[in-house]
Amino acid sequence: MRILWNEATSGPPEMAPVWQALREYFPRVARPDTEVVLRHLPVSGNYVRSLYTELLNNRAVVENAIAAEREGFDAVVLGCWADPLWEAREVVDIPVVGIGEAAMLLATTLGYKFAVITVAPGVVPTIALDLRLYGLEDRAISRPVRSLDPPSDLGLLVESVTNPERLLSNFERVARQCIADGAEVIVVGCGYYGPILTLHGYHEVPGTGVPVVDCSAAGLKLAEALVDLRRSTGLRKSTALFFRSPPREVLDRVRRAHGLEGTSGAP
Amino acid sequence: MRILWNEATSGPPEMAPVWQALREYFPRVARPDTEVVLRHLPVSGNYVRSLYTELLNNRAVVENAIAAEREGFDAVVLGCWADPLWEAREVVDIPVVGIGEAAMLLATTLGYKFAVITVAPGVVPTIALDLRLYGLEDRAISRPVRSLDPPSDLGLLVESVTNPERLLSNFERVARQCIADGAEVIVVGCGYYGPILTLHGYHEVPGTGVPVVDCSAAGLKLAEALVDLRRSTGLRKSTALFFRSPPREVLDRVRRAHGLEGTSGAP
Amino acid sequence: MRILWNEATSGPPEMAPVWQALREYFPRVARPDTEVVLRHLPVSGNYVRSLYTELLNNRAVVENAIAAEREGFDAVVLGCWADPLWEAREVVDIPVVGIGEAAMLLATTLGYKFAVITVAPGVVPTIALDLRLYGLEDRAISRPVRSLDPPSDLGLLVESVTNPERLLSNFERVARQCIADGAEVIVVGCGYYGPILTLHGYHEVPGTGVPVVDCSAAGLKLAEALVDLRRSTGLRKSTALFFRSPPREVLDRVRRAHGLEGTSGAP
Amino acid sequence: MRILWNEATSGPPEMAPVWQALREYFPRVARPDTEVVLRHLPVSGNYVRSLYTELLNNRAVVENAIAAEREGFDAVVLGCWADPLWEAREVVDIPVVGIGEAAMLLATTLGYKFAVITVAPGVVPTIALDLRLYGLEDRAISRPVRSLDPPSDLGLLVESVTNPERLLSNFERVARQCIADGAEVIVVGCGYYGPILTLHGYHEVPGTGVPVVDCSAAGLKLAEALVDLRRSTGLRKSTALFFRSPPREVLDRVRRAHGLEGTSGAP
Amino acid sequence: MRILWNEATSGPPEMAPVWQALREYFPRVARPDTEVVLRHLPVSGNYVRSLYTELLNNRAVVENAIAAEREGFDAVVLGCWADPLWEAREVVDIPVVGIGEAAMLLATTLGYKFAVITVAPGVVPTIALDLRLYGLEDRAISRPVRSLDPPSDLGLLVESVTNPERLLSNFERVARQCIADGAEVIVVGCGYYGPILTLHGYHEVPGTGVPVVDCSAAGLKLAEALVDLRRSTGLRKSTALFFRSPPREVLDRVRRAHGLEGTSGAP
Amino acid sequence: MRILWNEATSGPPEMAPVWQALREYFPRVARPDTEVVLRHLPVSGNYVRSLYTELLNNRAVVENAIAAEREGFDAVVLGCWADPLWEAREVVDIPVVGIGEAAMLLATTLGYKFAVITVAPGVVPTIALDLRLYGLEDRAISRPVRSLDPPSDLGLLVESVTNPERLLSNFERVARQCIADGAEVIVVGCGYYGPILTLHGYHEVPGTGVPVVDCSAAGLKLAEALVDLRRSTGLRKSTALFFRSPPREVLDRVRRAHGLEGTSGAP
Repeated sequence: MRILWNEATSGPPEMAPVWQALREYFPRVARPDTEVVLRHLPVSGNYVRSLYTELLNNRAVVENAIAAEREGFDAVVLGCWADPLWEAREVVDIPVVGIGEAAMLLATTLGYKFAVITVAPGVVPTIALDLRLYGLEDRAISRPVRSLDPPSDLGLLVESVTNPERLLSNFERVARQCIADGAEVIVVGCGYYGPILTLHGYHEVPGTGVPVVDCSAAGLKLAEALVDLRRSTGLRKSTALFFRSPPREVLDRVRRAHGLEGTSGAP
Repeated sequence: MRILWNEATSGPPEMAPVWQALREYFPRVARPDTEVVLRHLPVSGNYVRSLYTELLNNRAVVENAIAAEREGFDAVVLGCWADPLWEAREVVDIPVVGIGEAAMLLATTLGYKFAVITVAPGVVPTIALDLRLYGLEDRAISRPVRSLDPPSDLGLLVESVTNPERLLSNFERVARQCIADGAEVIVVGCGYYGPILTLHGYHEVPGTGVPVVDCSAAGLKLAEALVDLRRSTGLRKSTALFFRSPPREVLDRVRRAHGLEGTSGAP
Repeated sequence: MRILWNEATSGPPEMAPVWQALREYFPRVARPDTEVVLRHLPVSGNYVRSLYTELLNNRAVVENAIAAEREGFDAVVLGCWADPLWEAREVVDIPVVGIGEAAMLLATTLGYKFAVITVAPGVVPTIALDLRLYGLEDRAISRPVRSLDPPSDLGLLVESVTNPERLLSNFERVARQCIADGAEVIVVGCGYYGPILTLHGYHEVPGTGVPVVDCSAAGLKLAEALVDLRRSTGLRKSTALFFRSPPREVLDRVRRAHGLEGTSGAP
Repeated sequence: MRILWNEATSGPPEMAPVWQALREYFPRVARPDTEVVLRHLPVSGNYVRSLYTELLNNRAVVENAIAAEREGFDAVVLGCWADPLWEAREVVDIPVVGIGEAAMLLATTLGYKFAVITVAPGVVPTIALDLRLYGLEDRAISRPVRSLDPPSDLGLLVESVTNPERLLSNFERVARQCIADGAEVIVVGCGYYGPILTLHGYHEVPGTGVPVVDCSAAGLKLAEALVDLRRSTGLRKSTALFFRSPPREVLDRVRRAHGLEGTSGAP
Repeated sequence: MRILWNEATSGPPEMAPVWQALREYFPRVARPDTEVVLRHLPVSGNYVRSLYTELLNNRAVVENAIAAEREGFDAVVLGCWADPLWEAREVVDIPVVGIGEAAMLLATTLGYKFAVITVAPGVVPTIALDLRLYGLEDRAISRPVRSLDPPSDLGLLVESVTNPERLLSNFERVARQCIADGAEVIVVGCGYYGPILTLHGYHEVPGTGVPVVDCSAAGLKLAEALVDLRRSTGLRKSTALFFRSPPREVLDRVRRAHGLEGTSGAP
Repeated sequence: MRILWNEATSGPPEMAPVWQALREYFPRVARPDTEVVLRHLPVSGNYVRSLYTELLNNRAVVENAIAAEREGFDAVVLGCWADPLWEAREVVDIPVVGIGEAAMLLATTLGYKFAVITVAPGVVPTIALDLRLYGLEDRAISRPVRSLDPPSDLGLLVESVTNPERLLSNFERVARQCIADGAEVIVVGCGYYGPILTLHGYHEVPGTGVPVVDCSAAGLKLAEALVDLRRSTGLRKSTALFFRSPPREVLDRVRRAHGLEGTSGAP
């Protein structure tokens, strides 16, 4: 199967080591018959740490999802926690997976209470609101979303691809606070650090029995499962209420008004 | 005080009777010293009945909010339930009011359980998710957001400005079902029908003692209150976590990447 | 408009500086066309720090609300968190505002999670139960109501009118604990300290971006808004279930049995 | 043991058949070594179907509880759902039992979801708020408190003492609606009808397997249990926060201000 | 009345001091006319600190409950928090009491928020899940179930029968943390330590006003109350949904398949 | 990979068409490299429609899970909603999947609100309690678990393998009630009917846009994903609290006491 992996930035060259790492990562986590195509956004502010900057970014993210469907991809994974999962799911008929949703659902099968550790305080509201909308608060600890402290920056990110020491000491300090507050599972709240930790073979907070969920791997597995189920059982998203697309002609009209190609990929 | 009223469409001429009605309406509901400036969006698909079409619309809505601050307005009211309340609040320092939030908060002071009646099934998810994020589910009935049935269309909307009979019979049929399910207050889930009902003097489901909350009036009153409080007590939004704006230079950089004027109005 | 401000004590002379401060305060917070009339109770134990002592006090509070309606006031504000909001709202037709309800609703528009700081441990249960009944627990931090420590006493109260230093160091110590536990907004849980802080220009926990909500100002603004809405749109409380008054003849009979003037003000 | 049964009216003579029934009832439900003393209020409006009329009544109810402690009773049962349970519990050290709380707690041991059927719509808010404060909403059906329809009146009440037919057809019609909505247990929401149904041997909605909980019996059993536990294990109410009495001297001062005997019974 | 007290182990001789203590305990807590028969399990792993080992144990526990009914006991108390309360209640018609359920329900009448202190981390999940299923989370503190630290072992248990010093210092250290987190009542989360503390006259965390609930006493009192109510009012469990027994012939067939005596005691 | 599929009965011959159907089904739903081994229980009452009969059954189910691990299976799927998911997960280190948990988690990605339709009223409590423990109530409709009506029996089950007409008319009648109550997704609450519907190509309630989730397919996909993740990222269950196995020597001792082979498969 072919899966489009939507990366939520324009792919700035200073992050090249991360893109390289992701390209190494996908074949290690995907099934042999799964091809993962990494695609950046044509335009992006490359900053998802606020509700507003996400809003600006989200338009291009959904465009990628619509394009994926038109190009015959079997599924699309929105590769950032801040991505517009429900908006994309609404207008696209192929499976649309959010790595945050996938990771949190998976976490509930590994222990009773989970926590999410993300990269910066500015991402906390996004994830906290998603957690609430997903209805999973009872399975998370109090103050369920916490940030690396100090927050991640480009330096830490690129450095961690090859040398995770500074990342790990930061991550584990926060993780141990979560564990003290009742967390049995830690979810990595970032589509880059999940793969980076996996590439370094890191999957448990040492000595605690607490697994660390790589959100990107969780998202990829959910995408594969949804494609399988669609093929084998015909299962699709509900079009009854929340994820019902507007009529095609409305969609096309609205998109044209916003300067977007008039024909959406929705069936 | 001067309040910018953001209207969530491009102001299509076929809705001219509605714009005229709103212009009559504001002075009837605003305080004498409040000037309400109605402003449409420069670009809009004029369709808010889906999560996706809202996403496309929301960019321009926040632009209006940013412009309002720069132009010296005292507050901005987002005049549609589907508007990006928290995104705008994040990047703007003056009070930003959502008519849905305002109306539902107000409703909790008028009775114990409320319900929202909106214009079409496609708007239900937006409002239902907001209701959940606002934490007000315990104050609303089960299945708290319901739609006019049949849904509203342009014909009903324009007709209702002068003749509300068809609207009222539709609205009251749904309202009485809500009341049978425990609603003590009905909130009008549309920034047009709220004012239209008010202009017709309609404020209670006849014979039931159940008040009907005009969401636009609620929003305007909250805006006035927030401006008053800012002037008299200095009260502003929190910048501690959810509504904290990114740093100015980040905001400007992100906006430029998206083709928006480089200097935001945020302080 | 004319608003009766019900003060929940008999107005003991040793608190004269507070009464004087309130009289200075109202015109600063109210709109120019709003007249606020401060009225004490004819009889009071002057102690609201227990569920039981409130019960004794509440009879006179509702009498004041009934009298306000009969005397033609446009609204009544119950000026203490411990006041019988729903009981008064039930039997009075003009808007009845509780400063606690008003402040907590307002707080939800300024940040995601709020906390309340009140004057003494004995007031915590009252406010905590109200918070629960208002359905706002999801918008407040864990252990959402906390007390000044050491508790306030007459000395601190009167001193703070002119010199708030001791109050502020106490208040901020508690506030910073709330902020560490996730609070983005602090609500002042006392109808005296709210105005006192406002008169001293205090509206934010310094250096935190966390606003401090003066509950009395919030209550006054809600009262003004409700009066406006009643005049401009006809909006009134629901009489469907929770706030439905008993029939007038029953009310009169019951009141006479309790030695109260036989004719209530309820319409 | 000796238990004071606080009856929430002044004991009007037209209800004499009810008082007689209660006097027959207590020895049938109480343990042989339990003496139940029925005591009316010296003053009452004899109407508990509103939050406000209860407020007026509650003062005398707590006086009875305080008197019970002073007179050496082992416990006091507040014999009406509308009684001020927490206020009384706060200032009295002997066990204070509410029949509503007792019945709803008991109901949770008999099935998963319960419903309460009370006498009139005006009592619904009181019980619904108590249910919420007791934290038992998850164990009750949606719209958990319902009313006899038509509401009970004096005629039905007195008639039911000797002839329950009209009561039963009304009660069962409502009960079957509750059962259709998921109720596995029905709690009788009235301190008179509970005993009357018991005296008639009625304890299950016929043919449904759904037990009917006599709230008064539940309250009496909880009182006996609490007295037992106090004697055998020393168990008492918590004085840590919610049920902590104000200091004695404060209590006496407040009570005197309200014209009540200066010395409370609290230790 | 005669009550079977199901003890959840095979009664290993090294715990003889505990069995002796229980036998002294029952008459001190039970009513004079109540006979409590202590019965161990014929087979047990004598380890309830895991969901799995409980599962193995639970079969014999329900057998004891079925036998109790057949032998004419009036009620059965499951004497361990880990016991299969709802499974037993389903197939037995006499009252079946769980000491955990009884203690937590009772605790809600003594203060607003309770906590449970149990013997070891392995028991925490069992109790936490029960607390959630009972719907009582809102009446308990955050992280409501905590363990003695270090965990209890046989040495501590037997020693505490005669000398509770080491137990108390451990228990109180945990209890004071619970109190700091808002607990107003502490429930002893173990059917042995409850009685042991009672035998030592311990019923309050010293100096805090926080009562300590002996779960076994709570269970015994609930059993007595349920037997009383069944006799005086006819009240039984609901057979409507959750606690409805399979048909007798099915039950017998299933039991025979599992090598159990073919005739259950269920009516 | 090799997955053990635990079937929750002894495999009675009268159900042979079902076993045959399952054997046809697995290769259609599993990935080509997944081998699914169907295994019945050595002893079973073949009745899971009660909490008690499940308890009897669960011992053998966990034995199968333990055996699966010892025999080198990569994962075990508990093929019935009534299976002891957490007990098995606790003592087994390989992934243990419950079809109910898997299906309900999956359902949350397909629409906002789901409902479960199961085979008989006696299964409703099991599923309802699981739904509550999984923390998913906010994503399900009110009264989220409903039964075929009339309930399924052997005749309907076997008939449906070849002719699903009678099943479908029953299922759809209930499904449409769920949809009327807000369900956007229907989960098949039975490990037999899920596959049977899939084999008949049934995956949507006709004309509604509401997908029907085959729980068994969902379970199989989750098992494959967990095995993948364990291999590629090292991810395992948490051993921090809820799913922590007792020490090996304890486990062996307990199992021997219950007549089970002394050496468990847990590491």
